[in-house]
Amino acid sequence: MTAVRSVPVLLFVVAAASNAYRLHKFPELTAPEPSPYGSLWPLPQSVQVSPVVMFIPPPEFRIVHGEGSTAGPDCLVLQDAFRRYFDYMFDYIRLKDVPAGKTSSGRLVELQVILTSKDNECHKYPSILSDESYKLSVNDDGAVLQASQVWGAVRGLETFSQLVYKDETGAFLINKTQITDFPRFAHRGILLDTSRHFLPLKVILRTLDAMSFNKLNVLHWHIVDDQSFPYQSETFPELSDKGAYQPFTHIYTFIDIRMVIEYARLRGIRVVPEFDTPGHADSWGKGQKDLLTPCYKDGEPSGTFGPVNPIINNTYTFMYKLFREIGKVFPDQYIHLGGDEVDFSCWKSNPDINKFMAEHGFGTDYCKLESYYVQQILGIVSSLKKGYMVWQEVFDNHDQINPDTIVEVWKGGNYNEELYKVTAAGYSAILSAPWYLDYISYGQDWQRYYRIEPLNFNGTEEQKHLVIGGEACLWGEFVDATNLTPRLWPRASAVAERLWSNKTVTSVQDAYNRLVVHRCRMVGRGIAAEPLYVGFCENEVNY
Amino acid sequence: MTAVRSVPVLLFVVAAASNAYRLHKFPELTAPEPSPYGSLWPLPQSVQVSPVVMFIPPPEFRIVHGEGSTAGPDCLVLQDAFRRYFDYMFDYIRLKDVPAGKTSSGRLVELQVILTSKDNECHKYPSILSDESYKLSVNDDGAVLQASQVWGAVRGLETFSQLVYKDETGAFLINKTQITDFPRFAHRGILLDTSRHFLPLKVILRTLDAMSFNKLNVLHWHIVDDQSFPYQSETFPELSDKGAYQPFTHIYTFIDIRMVIEYARLRGIRVVPEFDTPGHADSWGKGQKDLLTPCYKDGEPSGTFGPVNPIINNTYTFMYKLFREIGKVFPDQYIHLGGDEVDFSCWKSNPDINKFMAEHGFGTDYCKLESYYVQQILGIVSSLKKGYMVWQEVFDNHDQINPDTIVEVWKGGNYNEELYKVTAAGYSAILSAPWYLDYISYGQDWQRYYRIEPLNFNGTEEQKHLVIGGEACLWGEFVDATNLTPRLWPRASAVAERLWSNKTVTSVQDAYNRLVVHRCRMVGRGIAAEPLYVGFCENEVNY
Repeated sequence: MTAVRSVPVLLFVVAAASNAYRLHKFPELTAPEPSPYGSLWPLPQSVQVSPVVMFIPPPEFRIVHGEGSTAGPDCLVLQDAFRRYFDYMFDYIRLKDVPAGKTSSGRLVELQVILTSKDNECHKYPSILSDESYKLSVNDDGAVLQASQVWGAVRGLETFSQLVYKDETGAFLINKTQITDFPRFAHRGILLDTSRHFLPLKVILRTLDAMSFNKLNVLHWHIVDDQSFPYQSETFPELSDKGAYQPFTHIYTFIDIRMVIEYARLRGIRVVPEFDTPGHADSWGKGQKDLLTPCYKDGEPSGTFGPVNPIINNTYTFMYKLFREIGKVFPDQYIHLGGDEVDFSCWKSNPDINKFMAEHGFGTDYCKLESYYVQQILGIVSSLKKGYMVWQEVFDNHDQINPDTIVEVWKGGNYNEELYKVTAAGYSAILSAPWYLDYISYGQDWQRYYRIEPLNFNGTEEQKHLVIGGEACLWGEFVDATNLTPRLWPRASAVAERLWSNKTVTSVQDAYNRLVVHRCRMVGRGIAAEPLYVGFCENEVNY
Repeated sequence: MTAVRSVPVLLFVVAAASNAYRLHKFPELTAPEPSPYGSLWPLPQSVQVSPVVMFIPPPEFRIVHGEGSTAGPDCLVLQDAFRRYFDYMFDYIRLKDVPAGKTSSGRLVELQVILTSKDNECHKYPSILSDESYKLSVNDDGAVLQASQVWGAVRGLETFSQLVYKDETGAFLINKTQITDFPRFAHRGILLDTSRHFLPLKVILRTLDAMSFNKLNVLHWHIVDDQSFPYQSETFPELSDKGAYQPFTHIYTFIDIRMVIEYARLRGIRVVPEFDTPGHADSWGKGQKDLLTPCYKDGEPSGTFGPVNPIINNTYTFMYKLFREIGKVFPDQYIHLGGDEVDFSCWKSNPDINKFMAEHGFGTDYCKLESYYVQQILGIVSSLKKGYMVWQEVFDNHDQINPDTIVEVWKGGNYNEELYKVTAAGYSAILSAPWYLDYISYGQDWQRYYRIEPLNFNGTEEQKHLVIGGEACLWGEFVDATNLTPRLWPRASAVAERLWSNKTVTSVQDAYNRLVVHRCRMVGRGIAAEPLYVGFCENEVNY
């Protein structure tokens, strides 16, 4: 009666298809083997692990600013990372009780962290241009982590922590190792949706923890949508007063958001907020009168509302003020402006809209009206000195967009063709289409995400350079605080390695071997990452 | 770019099938409406709710043994349930601060619980014959819960707690209500698998909590299997010493099991352990020499092992001692003996097995050898005065089984035909085939489980009476403590209502309306039940 050995033929076609799919398309990975790369995840660009093992005595071990580093104790990002990674490596150990280790072996008592750039960005926010590269050298005479900027140091500390393991006596060990590392793609994101379900702050912070364990560097915060408006605006407080699920408990205050941004910064993660219009904006209408288009039925207003009303000036005055605030609250250079899935039926029903269409010579092409609206919004945001990201429709509709616009390719079916088109037009692209993690299926579906190669489209080298990364999207229709973490991890880890590691890193078996350990490491660090298959972790989740 | 409005065509056939399935087979239930039955789940057999509302002042409210009850303060099951349900109803309320409520309305200050049977089973374990029926009357002059046995009272207390709600001031309310209730099926189970992954005790206890909220009454504890043997046997300690994932942390001690059993008893839940043989027993072989059949290759032992070795006497001596212990540790009348999915290839390879086959005239029909083995085990367990449950193969193979055997129908495809055959042969059956909850898919798949009608097979009324219930099975290949709770709930709630409520309760829309509230109630009581669709709970999970 078990699910794996013999598969019952279920009643439904889809179930049967699922089983067949599971058995034939995902080679069943069962017994993980030790990987030559230990539990490194994502795999660094270059790794040389020597068989020479050293003991690390936690009571003596120190992570310090190395000689010549441009950073010192005032570099909060590093100070916090030093503490954090010491905890992760030696957590729950009463320092005096640590086994001494065999004295015949070498001992490692120091990791020196050296930043080399004068502009090490200790006191800045990470950006799309941040340098995350680092070199890590673990030798008999000490370990050195060298990076140009703090962001590389943070990534290298994660790597160093992944090199530490325990022997059967509980002693901490590390092998002599040389690593040179940098990300393949600059934008490696997770999309969280806090509109379909509100996510308590703790859940977001925990996700940032897990992102840092996987070297992901962008939180795409899809903060509002049709269902609710949890962003508490200072300028327009009624938006959340009336548009949130609950105006006191299910909102993000300025303080909440500042905490998310700082928590993310300390982990080298950007926070890109999305305020999606003109569609997906039902909840906006509750707290902002006349913002949405009134729909008509039989020549009369029906009492329902459609997309943002693009034909009145107040809309743009409102948007200017709101985006001016948003631009200050979120320090990232980019704001995601959405622009997807605009339903034209309400616009079609509205006589004022149609009059406007006629006056502007749009005929009956509502795409042109959408373009008209988007153009205004892009102009507003540009005037605020911010860059923007948009969903692919904005590009597809031939809107005039700034050259530095980032187009997010989300539609399945033929995302390779879309990547070709977007980059042929000279725009930067990020890919999320194959990584909609809210879609679930039975079995080891992480393999599906892992096997995606983002640059498999026809195109010149120049075009491929314009693909700057990707995102794993966890839409919130069926996800909230109850199930977010195990649904996201370790499935998003597959995307993380694909976006960080070298293109040649494609062995699913070796990935499995490392990911099984990486997953238990995440569990040990408080992330309820679900299992890949049968087996156990030393420390199971126990709450 | 959201997942629901527009469905991207994914790359894989199965995904496309999934989407089609989701869109066409599950009508999308979005906005829940108030149900005339409030948030009752599972729906009682008979409910009359009056519009008359009374206030409940928690500082004064008492749950008491009613006059004439055969139970008193020494009835631990009731005492514990009184405390528990008071907590659930009025949790986190500082009693003095509760709003007084409008004084013009009636007030309810007492629920009397009256057991009517002299054999009220206060000090017993629940059994397949337990009486879970009850009557609940909530009137102006007080509320009375009447039941023959404690088990009905425990069910009725859950129902009472589901009738209590709050108004906008936070005052507690209840409507005048008359309920007569009893379960449609006697056996309403959840299968947990603690072999593929070890489940910490807390996870099991939390599952028992959630089961009681859904009036489920059997924990089918699939405690051991191929992957690990976490049951710590006093007689054979090496079984877990060598067969558990980890012999000190990943085991169930006698004390653990006693705690599970008592925690379950207090909630009217039976604990039926499964010790599955002769297949699914790899982990047994690690701690019990010569128990498994040595497999041969090219005429030599290959070093691998197959099912339990059925041809040596020691096997049966061992099994007798083990099951004698198990019979004492687990008080339930039934033990599940497994008997599914026996792989014959190892037996076929072994010359001693083949010699034995020849001597016994089994020819090359290894089913006969399996039957021979099962027969011995059934005899052993019978001699210990225990009943047994088995997977359907034991019946399919025409083993001689006791008339009181319960056959569990798990194979998909044609479970109606199997139900027909099993009941035509006069055996009791339980159904789990359509309720393998470890199979997951995108969307509102609880509807699929809800729409199952267990008695839709051709058969006489007598045959249908032999179907005594069903089980929702959560096999553990991809489930552990990280994801068990949101994967099980509220999907198992759909099975719970199907097995408790009247056959005529089939409105998926009304079920949705009640289940949305029931799921938030579970969240409020500490069960991270996942969302059914967009929306929110007053108290979200926040850890």
